[in-house]
Amino acid sequence: MRNIDEHTITDAVLQSIAGTKDARLRQVMTSLVTHLHDFVREVKLTEAEWKAGIDFLTATGQKCSDTRQEFILLSDTLGVSMLTIALNHAKPAGATEATVFGPFHTIDAPHVEQGADIAHGAPGLPMFVHAVVRGPDGEAVADAEVDVWQADDDGLYDVQRPELGDARRARAVLRTDAHGAVRFRSIVPTAYPIPVDGPVGAMLAATGRHPWRPAHLHFMIRADGYQPLTTHIFRDGDAYLDSDVVFGVRSSLVGDYVEHAPGSAPDGSVVDTTFFTLDQAFTLARA
Amino acid sequence: MRNIDEHTITDAVLQSIAGTKDARLRQVMTSLVTHLHDFVREVKLTEAEWKAGIDFLTATGQKCSDTRQEFILLSDTLGVSMLTIALNHAKPAGATEATVFGPFHTIDAPHVEQGADIAHGAPGLPMFVHAVVRGPDGEAVADAEVDVWQADDDGLYDVQRPELGDARRARAVLRTDAHGAVRFRSIVPTAYPIPVDGPVGAMLAATGRHPWRPAHLHFMIRADGYQPLTTHIFRDGDAYLDSDVVFGVRSSLVGDYVEHAPGSAPDGSVVDTTFFTLDQAFTLARA
Ligand SMILES: [Fe+2]
Ligand SMILES: [Fe+2]
Repeated sequence: MRNIDEHTITDAVLQSIAGTKDARLRQVMTSLVTHLHDFVREVKLTEAEWKAGIDFLTATGQKCSDTRQEFILLSDTLGVSMLTIALNHAKPAGATEATVFGPFHTIDAPHVEQGADIAHGAPGLPMFVHAVVRGPDGEAVADAEVDVWQADDDGLYDVQRPELGDARRARAVLRTDAHGAVRFRSIVPTAYPIPVDGPVGAMLAATGRHPWRPAHLHFMIRADGYQPLTTHIFRDGDAYLDSDVVFGVRSSLVGDYVEHAPGSAPDGSVVDTTFFTLDQAFTLARA
Repeated sequence: MRNIDEHTITDAVLQSIAGTKDARLRQVMTSLVTHLHDFVREVKLTEAEWKAGIDFLTATGQKCSDTRQEFILLSDTLGVSMLTIALNHAKPAGATEATVFGPFHTIDAPHVEQGADIAHGAPGLPMFVHAVVRGPDGEAVADAEVDVWQADDDGLYDVQRPELGDARRARAVLRTDAHGAVRFRSIVPTAYPIPVDGPVGAMLAATGRHPWRPAHLHFMIRADGYQPLTTHIFRDGDAYLDSDVVFGVRSSLVGDYVEHAPGSAPDGSVVDTTFFTLDQAFTLARA
């Protein structure tokens, strides 16, 4: 411990945490320290770079607030969020795949009836969604909670619009009927950039990356006896499907959004603009 | 990019930063992403652990202020600071070794004359320091700037005492004389704990580590024609020399603090308590 150099220091740190009572914490910290030191040695980090790293992490923490989580954004944009999800959701074949949760879910979305218009005034072309929730044997899952949320046509979630205050739009919670189905009207999702006015935006710019996510509708589905599912349904043809800034796209999650000329909508109404329909099935894994 | 899983995601992220213009940034980011993903895969990080990590980093950033740098504390306690220093200060044989800078240096320390009492009222037993600065060929380095700072007998730096306001004590800047020497009076340093009222303190507790640093006097020495040196002189016999919480001890940096009974001090004064002397030579590397 008195002969610290660039080779002995890793053992010295590992030695210092060898007494960690919680075996899992000891395992995680041992791996973390080992990889962190390997990184520093591999690039022979300079003192100026070390200082830049300290400043970046500090600014990232200080950007966080009640309505902004810059460290989640950092984890998302470095693929750490999606990697963690992939490691923890090796679903039985046939189950719908999971993807990133994202920072825009809220716990106060309105609970609505079948057929409701959840857009609530959010700008965008109308979309009529019919989603069915099934179990692994194809059985309909009745009374499942289906939480949906999305950005509007300007690429903003309601929580990103200070002028809305606490008003919620383009998000809702529904319950599946006896056939495992929910039906609702909303707006068709479009691609949007993640917030770039913080350290993560600077990192994207410095590494030559765009901040865009391909258009998607968020779903979180829960039902007794099944594993919860957090996922998106992406829109085929989106320009960013192959370069999602948070690495959330899986080909099985690209849905069939169909464009329609003005006219009769699935809910019996007549729509005077182009509109979309989405029919989507979800398969939950058994709990 | 649409077939993201726990194996393909690392390549997808590396691909996304392959266009980074700055070649060094590309190298650092490539290594960082690779090791970060290897860590997550190796421990099969759970989603709850991922969330705990996000919360820890956020709290660490939010603990930072003008007078507190919790991310430096984290880097120090995980050995990353000392590793970076060791990588960047492979000094020619014979030069004094470097160690951590620490978070308690200030740029407004008083500039004092030879023989000054720099303690300025800080509690502790008197200490008389005689330090000589030399070059690699043994030549005296005249007019070198010698910046010294230390904790007091309560284990606190002046900046950790709100009651002192901007008043500075137990720190000073001196200049070496024609023989490369500085002489000053201060107090003998004692061991102190790093601040534990933040996330880093929680990390130390969870991993069974104490927060103590062995007693030391900080030196930062600069002279034209030589490499700057940032180091400590530790006190032999200290209980924490083999378990410094920031891994800063090197055996070559343990100095010869000599204890004396009350009586005549090196500066000609008579001291009525136990006091200490420290004679220390520093050898700078050529610039
Ligand atoms: Fe989203
Ligand atoms: Fe110190």
